[in-house]
Amino acid sequence: MQSVIDINDLTVSEIDELLATAHDMIEHPQTYAHAAAGKILATLFYEPSTRTRLSFEAAMYGLGGQVLSVPSASHSSASKGETISDTLSVISNYADIVAMRHPHDGAALVASNAASRPVINAGDGGHFHPTQTLADLLTIERSFGRLEGLTIVAVGDLLYGRTVHSLLHAMMRYPNNTFIMVSPHELKLPADFLAHVRSQGVDIRETTSLADALPQADVVYMTRVQQERFANRDDYERLKGAYVLTAGMMENASPDCIVMHPLPRVGEISSEVDSDPRARYFEQTYNGKMMRMALIHHLLQAADTNQEREQREEFVHSIPAETAVCPNSRCITHFERDIVPRLYPDTQQCVYCDYIAPNL
Amino acid sequence: MQSVIDINDLTVSEIDELLATAHDMIEHPQTYAHAAAGKILATLFYEPSTRTRLSFEAAMYGLGGQVLSVPSASHSSASKGETISDTLSVISNYADIVAMRHPHDGAALVASNAASRPVINAGDGGHFHPTQTLADLLTIERSFGRLEGLTIVAVGDLLYGRTVHSLLHAMMRYPNNTFIMVSPHELKLPADFLAHVRSQGVDIRETTSLADALPQADVVYMTRVQQERFANRDDYERLKGAYVLTAGMMENASPDCIVMHPLPRVGEISSEVDSDPRARYFEQTYNGKMMRMALIHHLLQAADTNQEREQREEFVHSIPAETAVCPNSRCITHFERDIVPRLYPDTQQCVYCDYIAPNL
Amino acid sequence: MQSVIDINDLTVSEIDELLATAHDMIEHPQTYAHAAAGKILATLFYEPSTRTRLSFEAAMYGLGGQVLSVPSASHSSASKGETISDTLSVISNYADIVAMRHPHDGAALVASNAASRPVINAGDGGHFHPTQTLADLLTIERSFGRLEGLTIVAVGDLLYGRTVHSLLHAMMRYPNNTFIMVSPHELKLPADFLAHVRSQGVDIRETTSLADALPQADVVYMTRVQQERFANRDDYERLKGAYVLTAGMMENASPDCIVMHPLPRVGEISSEVDSDPRARYFEQTYNGKMMRMALIHHLLQAADTNQEREQREEFVHSIPAETAVCPNSRCITHFERDIVPRLYPDTQQCVYCDYIAPNL
Repeated sequence: MQSVIDINDLTVSEIDELLATAHDMIEHPQTYAHAAAGKILATLFYEPSTRTRLSFEAAMYGLGGQVLSVPSASHSSASKGETISDTLSVISNYADIVAMRHPHDGAALVASNAASRPVINAGDGGHFHPTQTLADLLTIERSFGRLEGLTIVAVGDLLYGRTVHSLLHAMMRYPNNTFIMVSPHELKLPADFLAHVRSQGVDIRETTSLADALPQADVVYMTRVQQERFANRDDYERLKGAYVLTAGMMENASPDCIVMHPLPRVGEISSEVDSDPRARYFEQTYNGKMMRMALIHHLLQAADTNQEREQREEFVHSIPAETAVCPNSRCITHFERDIVPRLYPDTQQCVYCDYIAPNL
Repeated sequence: MQSVIDINDLTVSEIDELLATAHDMIEHPQTYAHAAAGKILATLFYEPSTRTRLSFEAAMYGLGGQVLSVPSASHSSASKGETISDTLSVISNYADIVAMRHPHDGAALVASNAASRPVINAGDGGHFHPTQTLADLLTIERSFGRLEGLTIVAVGDLLYGRTVHSLLHAMMRYPNNTFIMVSPHELKLPADFLAHVRSQGVDIRETTSLADALPQADVVYMTRVQQERFANRDDYERLKGAYVLTAGMMENASPDCIVMHPLPRVGEISSEVDSDPRARYFEQTYNGKMMRMALIHHLLQAADTNQEREQREEFVHSIPAETAVCPNSRCITHFERDIVPRLYPDTQQCVYCDYIAPNL
Repeated sequence: MQSVIDINDLTVSEIDELLATAHDMIEHPQTYAHAAAGKILATLFYEPSTRTRLSFEAAMYGLGGQVLSVPSASHSSASKGETISDTLSVISNYADIVAMRHPHDGAALVASNAASRPVINAGDGGHFHPTQTLADLLTIERSFGRLEGLTIVAVGDLLYGRTVHSLLHAMMRYPNNTFIMVSPHELKLPADFLAHVRSQGVDIRETTSLADALPQADVVYMTRVQQERFANRDDYERLKGAYVLTAGMMENASPDCIVMHPLPRVGEISSEVDSDPRARYFEQTYNGKMMRMALIHHLLQAADTNQEREQREEFVHSIPAETAVCPNSRCITHFERDIVPRLYPDTQQCVYCDYIAPNL
């Protein structure tokens, strides 16, 4: 465990170890209050995300470390034409660990290849955001004492919603979970993704009715339905009401279920639900801070001892480059000098952004 | 004392306690150098005010605490449509205390209702800015050894000037102070405010002549006269010279008086006055830092033990809502979802921004 | 040593002392880990320069101090019309030392005259940037064990390039160094500057050929050639290739030479050179942090004991003002109220920006 780009970079046993550390940090914060004393975290944000930035910074302070804060990295050397690789080579001389957010898919892998310090992906475009998923896992585990044998109802934009995809990837690695996907037809889970989940023998179902799915849920995972996803506004107006969780609807939910949301919300959960003891969306942000603390702690401890970065870079370079071009227009390979695009020979998947061209 | 929205949230004895703490901090800074160790202050600024932000942050460092800095909160989750209430619920999981600045009147009360941590109002629109007033009180007390029996000459824009209103509110609670209000007719103290002060038996006078008032002053409180307050530019050009304090004018002032200004100045005090030992406007910024240290220290100590926030929220909810609409177009109730506007039944004053519609 | 505006503010023995301290900090970082505990550095940046800002902030953290970060000071009180002098008077009440960057020539001297704390110039327009030069000196000394008897080949934009001018100023104070200036005719070292260097008996030569100069170099100092410096784009396109350092060219360079660049680069050094052990441009950023640590440490130690600021201010005021106007349109004297322009009587050089009108 050196850099964390994708939730799948972590094995199930590594995730379990992080969860155990986070639990211990919640119970014994003083034990860790100086664990990162003298260490520096750089929060390098090429697009603004105050919530995520503050969560990382609060986590570092909880470990007794310091923070170099770059809330808008795109206004700086990047505007003078510096590559991500050069920036990370420089930042590695200022900080011991870097949390980076970037608007382009695959940017986090580019950064981790150049940095001589651990890099945590704090979101790269629509690609990955692994610490959000770690926060979600801790929230579920703190509520149920386990990550298996649960029914997860995910609601809203399942087509583009990165958090749901990532949670699904993580939770299907634990046994006996059931997934109910609730969305309008326009925003269903991508067909390829659904097929992949089913191919693993996972029980996953689809519906358009939140009312039908709600009573079965252990976990209700709400997400935003964004107007701009719809071709016409009437469709949006007609649908959005159906995916707003109200106190009235909560009467039909299990007394032991929990309600989650990655936040910010813009109306998907009525504020009257906030006082319902099943609401966990604000606690999620606390759990996010604790999981980031656990992750920073593990990465700093590992930084002196392992060689994973070199191994990863060697692996990337072992993929033949030749004439590959990534078909994803948002992939970082289209924006940076000096990156050779590479596709995995068997799947033609991009090494950087993991994009696979759809079969037409 | 949990959250501080308005200088009137503090009793005279609480103010005196803060002043005493600040004095002790000035004399024995080492005693407090680790008082907030392990604690985090978030400076959540929805509009830029570098001076105020740095003052809070320096104060927190003086207590050995850490800072989560958000110099431009409006570029972040707020731009995704998140309410102040949701943001404060989240920030409460990252920080132990919050200093918030916001362009809308009443925003600080909304924030303190949602936060589970103490909130200090660092300015909400044209409404309140209590720590500026605390800085002013410490400056006066350090110079005279008392807050009573003084003649305060306030100069400039008294119609819109928040700092003068707030200083007046605070100083009229101490006995035997006299107030001389110096302004052009266009920028006189609001008539309602003047009537209110007089109704309390306070000696308050008005004049347009700084030269007449200056010799009587113990405290000369200068403020900016902004051109945009005048209907025509000629009036502004004619008047502004009359409210510029020069070294020559200072010859007619008392040798024991002091000159204050909330800063930034843009010409109201000639730079030649800077070397006059009676000038206190730069010391005011030092005193502001020390009062913020005292306030943060008291609020953090009180945070674990009291229930004021809940009491305040209960109080707000006890005001009937019905069909109330605040007539102040800058009131936060016009900008946030999920806030029910409320007016005090007797005065029809807005609970959030304290606005009272003028009698027409 | 109180404020550092210009590399020439430091004597050779002061520079040697800073270098020695930096070496000691590199070898024994723990010795200095709490040297600035309880102290605050303000990074006051009127134009963005994330790299420089982070380097100062990381340096302060390395000394155990705290940071007040102002990444975009121009959005704050300055926009309300506050002078640099007033801002520095205020900041002096919040911080123990200030690193300031400003777009106007001479702004750093104005700041240091007003501040009651040490000011480090982190770049004032095209004028000075002394800590960049200190980083360069440490890089050379760490590689060669000395700062004398070396051949420095400077490449690129030598007309406007501040870093090369400043490095030349510093290195010509050490004996037996030779300078080879490599640039297109359009971007040659200013004639006055060249004449000045030669008048000191220094061996300095000019050429347009990087290939010719490269084999002689101990130090290859690359800089950006900016397209906007050329009257027509064709000239730029024709020339720029000649000043790009490639792995192939490095075969003709000395095995003991080093390659430096102030960064960011935008193509002047091919990324294939990064793995050449002679490449020192990323190490330069580490050395910059260490020299800033050494400088902050010395200035904080000196701050309580000396009176240099007063002496400097007195000196400035001893220059007659009369009808002087600085002919440099970017000089700070044209932008700030309350600064009396002053020219040295003998040379007619501006006291603030050091500009001398060219002989026409």
